[in-house]
Amino acid sequence: MSLNIKGIAASSGIAIAKAFRLENPELIIEKKTVEDTAAEVVRLDEALAVSKNELAAIKDLAFAELGADKAAIFEAHLLVLNDPELVNPVKDKIKGEQVNAEYAMNEVATMFVNLFENMDSEYMKERAADIRDVTKRVLAHLLGVSFSNPSTITEEVVIIAEDLTPSDTAQLNRKYAKGFTTDIGGRTSHSAIMARSMEIPAVVGTKVVMEQIKNGDIVIVDGLDGDVIVNPSADVLRAYEEKKAKFEEQKAEWAKLKNEPTVTSDGTHVELVANIGTPKDVKGVIDNGGEGVGLYRTEFLYMGRDNLPTEEEQFEAYKTVLESMGGKPVVVRTLDIGGDKELPYLHLPKEMNPFLGYRAIRLCLEEQEIFRTQLRALLRASVYGNLKIMFPMIATLDEFRQAKAILIDEKDKLISGGISVSDSIEVGMMVEIPSSAVLADQFAKEVDFFSIGTNDLIQYTMAADRMNERVSYLYQPYNPAILRLVKMVIDAAHKEGKWAGMCGEMAGDALAIPLLIGLGLDEFSMSATSILPARTQIRKLSKTEMQELANKALNMSTAEEVVELVKSI
Amino acid sequence: MSLNIKGIAASSGIAIAKAFRLENPELIIEKKTVEDTAAEVVRLDEALAVSKNELAAIKDLAFAELGADKAAIFEAHLLVLNDPELVNPVKDKIKGEQVNAEYAMNEVATMFVNLFENMDSEYMKERAADIRDVTKRVLAHLLGVSFSNPSTITEEVVIIAEDLTPSDTAQLNRKYAKGFTTDIGGRTSHSAIMARSMEIPAVVGTKVVMEQIKNGDIVIVDGLDGDVIVNPSADVLRAYEEKKAKFEEQKAEWAKLKNEPTVTSDGTHVELVANIGTPKDVKGVIDNGGEGVGLYRTEFLYMGRDNLPTEEEQFEAYKTVLESMGGKPVVVRTLDIGGDKELPYLHLPKEMNPFLGYRAIRLCLEEQEIFRTQLRALLRASVYGNLKIMFPMIATLDEFRQAKAILIDEKDKLISGGISVSDSIEVGMMVEIPSSAVLADQFAKEVDFFSIGTNDLIQYTMAADRMNERVSYLYQPYNPAILRLVKMVIDAAHKEGKWAGMCGEMAGDALAIPLLIGLGLDEFSMSATSILPARTQIRKLSKTEMQELANKALNMSTAEEVVELVKSI
Repeated sequence: MSLNIKGIAASSGIAIAKAFRLENPELIIEKKTVEDTAAEVVRLDEALAVSKNELAAIKDLAFAELGADKAAIFEAHLLVLNDPELVNPVKDKIKGEQVNAEYAMNEVATMFVNLFENMDSEYMKERAADIRDVTKRVLAHLLGVSFSNPSTITEEVVIIAEDLTPSDTAQLNRKYAKGFTTDIGGRTSHSAIMARSMEIPAVVGTKVVMEQIKNGDIVIVDGLDGDVIVNPSADVLRAYEEKKAKFEEQKAEWAKLKNEPTVTSDGTHVELVANIGTPKDVKGVIDNGGEGVGLYRTEFLYMGRDNLPTEEEQFEAYKTVLESMGGKPVVVRTLDIGGDKELPYLHLPKEMNPFLGYRAIRLCLEEQEIFRTQLRALLRASVYGNLKIMFPMIATLDEFRQAKAILIDEKDKLISGGISVSDSIEVGMMVEIPSSAVLADQFAKEVDFFSIGTNDLIQYTMAADRMNERVSYLYQPYNPAILRLVKMVIDAAHKEGKWAGMCGEMAGDALAIPLLIGLGLDEFSMSATSILPARTQIRKLSKTEMQELANKALNMSTAEEVVELVKSI
Repeated sequence: MSLNIKGIAASSGIAIAKAFRLENPELIIEKKTVEDTAAEVVRLDEALAVSKNELAAIKDLAFAELGADKAAIFEAHLLVLNDPELVNPVKDKIKGEQVNAEYAMNEVATMFVNLFENMDSEYMKERAADIRDVTKRVLAHLLGVSFSNPSTITEEVVIIAEDLTPSDTAQLNRKYAKGFTTDIGGRTSHSAIMARSMEIPAVVGTKVVMEQIKNGDIVIVDGLDGDVIVNPSADVLRAYEEKKAKFEEQKAEWAKLKNEPTVTSDGTHVELVANIGTPKDVKGVIDNGGEGVGLYRTEFLYMGRDNLPTEEEQFEAYKTVLESMGGKPVVVRTLDIGGDKELPYLHLPKEMNPFLGYRAIRLCLEEQEIFRTQLRALLRASVYGNLKIMFPMIATLDEFRQAKAILIDEKDKLISGGISVSDSIEVGMMVEIPSSAVLADQFAKEVDFFSIGTNDLIQYTMAADRMNERVSYLYQPYNPAILRLVKMVIDAAHKEGKWAGMCGEMAGDALAIPLLIGLGLDEFSMSATSILPARTQIRKLSKTEMQELANKALNMSTAEEVVELVKSI
């Protein structure tokens, strides 16, 4: 019998294949009294060691297949297992209460999971999910239970699961895992994000797929509209095969534009570039026809380790990216740490409002050795390609001047030391704090370019934490106030003969692109997989018409009105 | 021998009197093994009960003398003593480890104090100070030790102390305590804030007064320049007596303007009104020549209790304020809770960035019963004076429309129930979120007035938590970006024939006032004690000249340049 299930479209495309249920056997934890607590601690240590080895292997796999951005998740898991705040209480419990390792581990982990889950923050909820994921692995080893392992699949399937943990997702083989669908999760859950970067169609949050789908059922996953169809009739199957072919056709159409310029129908050229996290990501940029890198997030060099990267390590990474991009522009953002991105080894104090705290350039201007090391590595790498440097979280002109002075100081020192440095490095800044957008005309006299970071700019302009679900209704890219700030930045740049780009999520958003073309944005930086669809879209737009559209939008009073307007074209 | 000590000027004016050292005897806590732990718990409960009675009495004193704003500190202390998260671990420790109550109390409190002090947040550090203050009181009772009690002083003195706890400050009798000076503390510490509202000259953070000053020394406290002079020579004494007389003279000059209008030298009238927290604060507004209330913070009605205030309680408070102001305008801000202002009984979830979270109007639109109760109380009170209502934390026009619709709904219901409501209530909004400043022209079509809340507007525009010391350099009222946003709001209001006020700290700042006059601000709301100095200042300023000044400032690039410019006039 055929069955239609509705879920959340998490990754576009259509998959049609046999169901493969990813079963996670229930772990039954009994409380036992143990005499030899020392032996029990050894058992725990062994299970921890095996788990760490497995995670390290999965991390390497993720790094090779998915890039450092995704591999960072497993670094986070390894950190959990190395965290004395988790491990010591487990050992204390074993010894203090004379209980078995499984019980102690489960009790302590559950306590932390509950603590973090009850915080109204997406970030802390993800930490809870991390702990749950690694705890399951350790408990399975302690209990001698094994899980279904997605890496053993050898035929084309659709994965059915309650939820895909990050480690499950990383082990999916793209050749066989044609799509997946889960009971829980949302568009921004780890697994959904991974599905998009792996280009695997996915529907999440269905609530019922594990209840309704058996191994071997024929399943259609429609990641375009969020539908899951089980054992479809011949007619439905045919319809979806057509829909799938059409989607593939569209992708093929996009691919044809890989080496084409991005020009509006009335002849304005814009640049479509990509956001990357590591040198490994460059391949995706080139494969997707990126005209450069608009945002190289250097944080990943600093993450998942227990000390700062050396100048040499950084130099190698920057050189690799610049060389691989073969002379195309590479905009490198200097270290943006703090806020939701922590580096445990820097021992930064806990803050009441980390998003309004000591982070990015604020930290770099204080901890100058960290900053100068990065700048030296960048300057030395500059001769290997077309480097542009930008500073994050600039709120005042003083900060920009200080940062630039330090850059020039390091450049002068290198040159007088006989080391060659490119003399055409553009130096710009992120515009992600309202003050710098409002004062863009003053900044424009001193910077070489702007890159608008909409994720932060929106959250500060609306005073709403973008990770806090209770105020997520205020994350409004189309709010006329945001559009006005974007316009101020672009106009200020052009008045001084500079260029303005955007590297927030908005730059790759099909609904925002017409407005951004109308506002005169020069450079759009987005995830690599969005570049070809964006190019296709832009080539059909008339800049003159989009200017009229943008002018209307700027004088509207709410985001809803703007969305309606853009949808009407 | 004469001695000059430098400290931080915390409250203006000059005091000359004999020193009175406020000694806090050292509390020596020994660890003892107890057999009868039940009896020890009873001892603890008794000490807690006595401490609570004392705090309740101090709170009443503070309420009568200083207003609810200050009394709230003792509410916070009472909450600490009633908090099971503090008290239960103490009892567990007594019973579990068979130790004496003093030891257990000290251990648990120290643990919390260390935890909170190590957070890089002024707010949490204040919580640590609260715990330290109340713990000392409880330990003193357990140990049978008594403290010097400032309320027993019966001659004119200058108080010398390591630090003044809020409870010490509240017990100071203004008749005898002519000034104080402390080793620790800064301009924004509790005791400094209290000194300003009590108008007692104070110099804090001297580091050495307890070491250098004996009981009976003659001490000059110069709260204007932050100097403390011990046993001055006759010449020095005479000079300070002159300085004191001059300051008193200036205060007398200010007082003459109590009933005068606030008019610039070239004839523009502006309104100087006050910020209040409770009906008790109205006396200070009238005594200081306030032309109305520009911000009535209704939160205090909700704080320091364990349930919501009833409609009737609120009605009485609003009616009292409106009647006492005798027809002068009273701008009431609806409930602004959340962020740094918590209401334990609402059980709001912990947030990662509370300043960017679920607070003020965001909460009121969700928890409509709380909001509607307040609005009904306000509407019923409206017939007793000149009421204006404003909504806090408005980020979008939708929010304003929703809030106003609820107000109108309640008004219609009251009227159809036969209850009279004023038909001339102005309905406005706080502008404290960048989006609403940028979109002020759209808002101006629908509001009756704006009140710019600079404290929040600055922190969001600069993306810097104003309570976080590490980024305090970014709290820049004179940043041209802030001035531009203020101008957008004022211009937008005037274009639609509406008025614009300001109720942040900037409105009472002598350095900001020339700029705000130049920008065309209509209403300045400040602490009552700032009104007369501000009126004196404004009567000497020419609006035309200040407009030129403001235009220059708007086109500057940094806050430093603006400060220099204003100082040059």
